[in-house]
Amino acid sequence: MTELALALGIDVGGTKIASGLVDRDGAVQEAQVHLTAGPGEAAIEQLIDIARSYLTQRQVAHIGIVVPGGVDPATQTVISAPNLGWRDLPLAQRLLHKLGRDVHLENDANAAAWAEHRFAAGRGQETTILVTVGTGIGGGLVIRDQLFRGQHGLSGEIGHLPLIANGRPCPCGSSGCWEQYASGTALVAEGRRRDWKPSQFTGAEILTAAEAGDHTAIDIVDTVSGHLAHGLTILAATLDPSRVILGGGLGSDPRFVRRVNASLQQFKPTPQRFPFTARIAVLGVHAGLIGAADLARNPDATMLRPPGEVRSA
Amino acid sequence: MTELALALGIDVGGTKIASGLVDRDGAVQEAQVHLTAGPGEAAIEQLIDIARSYLTQRQVAHIGIVVPGGVDPATQTVISAPNLGWRDLPLAQRLLHKLGRDVHLENDANAAAWAEHRFAAGRGQETTILVTVGTGIGGGLVIRDQLFRGQHGLSGEIGHLPLIANGRPCPCGSSGCWEQYASGTALVAEGRRRDWKPSQFTGAEILTAAEAGDHTAIDIVDTVSGHLAHGLTILAATLDPSRVILGGGLGSDPRFVRRVNASLQQFKPTPQRFPFTARIAVLGVHAGLIGAADLARNPDATMLRPPGEVRSA
Repeated sequence: MTELALALGIDVGGTKIASGLVDRDGAVQEAQVHLTAGPGEAAIEQLIDIARSYLTQRQVAHIGIVVPGGVDPATQTVISAPNLGWRDLPLAQRLLHKLGRDVHLENDANAAAWAEHRFAAGRGQETTILVTVGTGIGGGLVIRDQLFRGQHGLSGEIGHLPLIANGRPCPCGSSGCWEQYASGTALVAEGRRRDWKPSQFTGAEILTAAEAGDHTAIDIVDTVSGHLAHGLTILAATLDPSRVILGGGLGSDPRFVRRVNASLQQFKPTPQRFPFTARIAVLGVHAGLIGAADLARNPDATMLRPPGEVRSA
Repeated sequence: MTELALALGIDVGGTKIASGLVDRDGAVQEAQVHLTAGPGEAAIEQLIDIARSYLTQRQVAHIGIVVPGGVDPATQTVISAPNLGWRDLPLAQRLLHKLGRDVHLENDANAAAWAEHRFAAGRGQETTILVTVGTGIGGGLVIRDQLFRGQHGLSGEIGHLPLIANGRPCPCGSSGCWEQYASGTALVAEGRRRDWKPSQFTGAEILTAAEAGDHTAIDIVDTVSGHLAHGLTILAATLDPSRVILGGGLGSDPRFVRRVNASLQQFKPTPQRFPFTARIAVLGVHAGLIGAADLARNPDATMLRPPGEVRSA
């Protein structure tokens, strides 16, 4: 492994920015996490500083950056990243100007799906769906070993698929969006709806209470996991994927995933001979930056086989 | 165009069998339609007779056959085609034995999606979703110019995606399936539910009455078209397709598609800057056999550009 084989991956979130150098096998070196300095220009300046700190010290062959929002794959413009206050931002162009280097931009869930497909929970599969369940829901699709971005770079923006027609209002302006029913936010909201506790509480507390046998907490978790299973069954009926992976804060919690998989059994996918269970993502907080770096190395993300993997037809 | 460039396409349905010779541009010669002789062995024997009648008179380079059910792409076995009473049927092997020729098997909606993508309503697009709305709902996905079949050959089996959790029972054994809410069958059922007319009536009658201003008929059509728009919005949020095409008896009726497109506006896809409208399929009853023949010619269905088309990036 030569120094030049390293790619820099940076995962810019609304709360924190994770970065690291990634080798061809997806292993991370010199990982760093910074709290995001703020929305708008502040985050852009911080991103440039972080990239420069790597570039001045190490040889970096490629740079990949992922953002929590839509990216136009053709123009490498951020269409909209609400948590960062970015809209129609020509970020790749800005960074080329400031760093003197080409960067590859990607949606964060797309990159995480790619990383899991290449190196972790989706390795050896042909078609991988990653659903990240945290504050909201995100998603990424790897179809026939290719990252699938869609016509406008918005494939896998499944958090806003209308799970329930004329359902709960969503800040996005639509209603009935999946993430209003099945997310960390939805878990706490469901607890409030049932007056689970009079004061502040978190989703983690509800999960802990459900594990301990609190009946109301069990009902709350089952309601939310049922809504997640509903959407997952829709995705599976549409795509007949090889693997469905859950990531994100809530989606990576084994206590929650167990209830989701129990709920999936009740949806009786058609035909019933091909039921599926959701697996838990493996790469955790590094998934985005690993995918960012690997996609920068292979921007077409096309027909790459997982390293060292022998596959059946 | 030499004689050898012709491929035979046969679309085996529960009611009728359509067949014809298809050239490289998707044009059909010597089209025939037969009523299906019956389920089970009767249909297999009839299919063999039809194929032989072409093979004895013309030079045929390839043979493609489509069925209304799941096909395992690897084994070329019919997993299940309920309308024909076929289950785990090694049809390609049977036909090789009887005809002495290799045949390519495909799901009918997959083949129709491929035909529309190559030659008609999806021509020049990168990603095409075809949703056929007739007695039930079928679907086919062409993703990045490739027919996408899924892990078990069941991608696009969207008629049974659970539109409504714990919804209406479906003969498939599940409940809440999309086609229970948005199909020709659902249109008539919705009419019954509202006592639209005391006696027998058809979906076509309801559409005609709605066009003439009958308020109950308008409500019935809007309910069904709303359910169709709901599912279409879910598919669009998941895949961000280049084109969504409606086919099938009800799905090709312009009076119905107009109401569906009106309903789509109310679902406010996210982000709202990329709304979409559904187009009507062009190839009609020939779509399946054209796709069958073209897929027999190009079994990988991979990275083929529509003939004579200049595409933008």
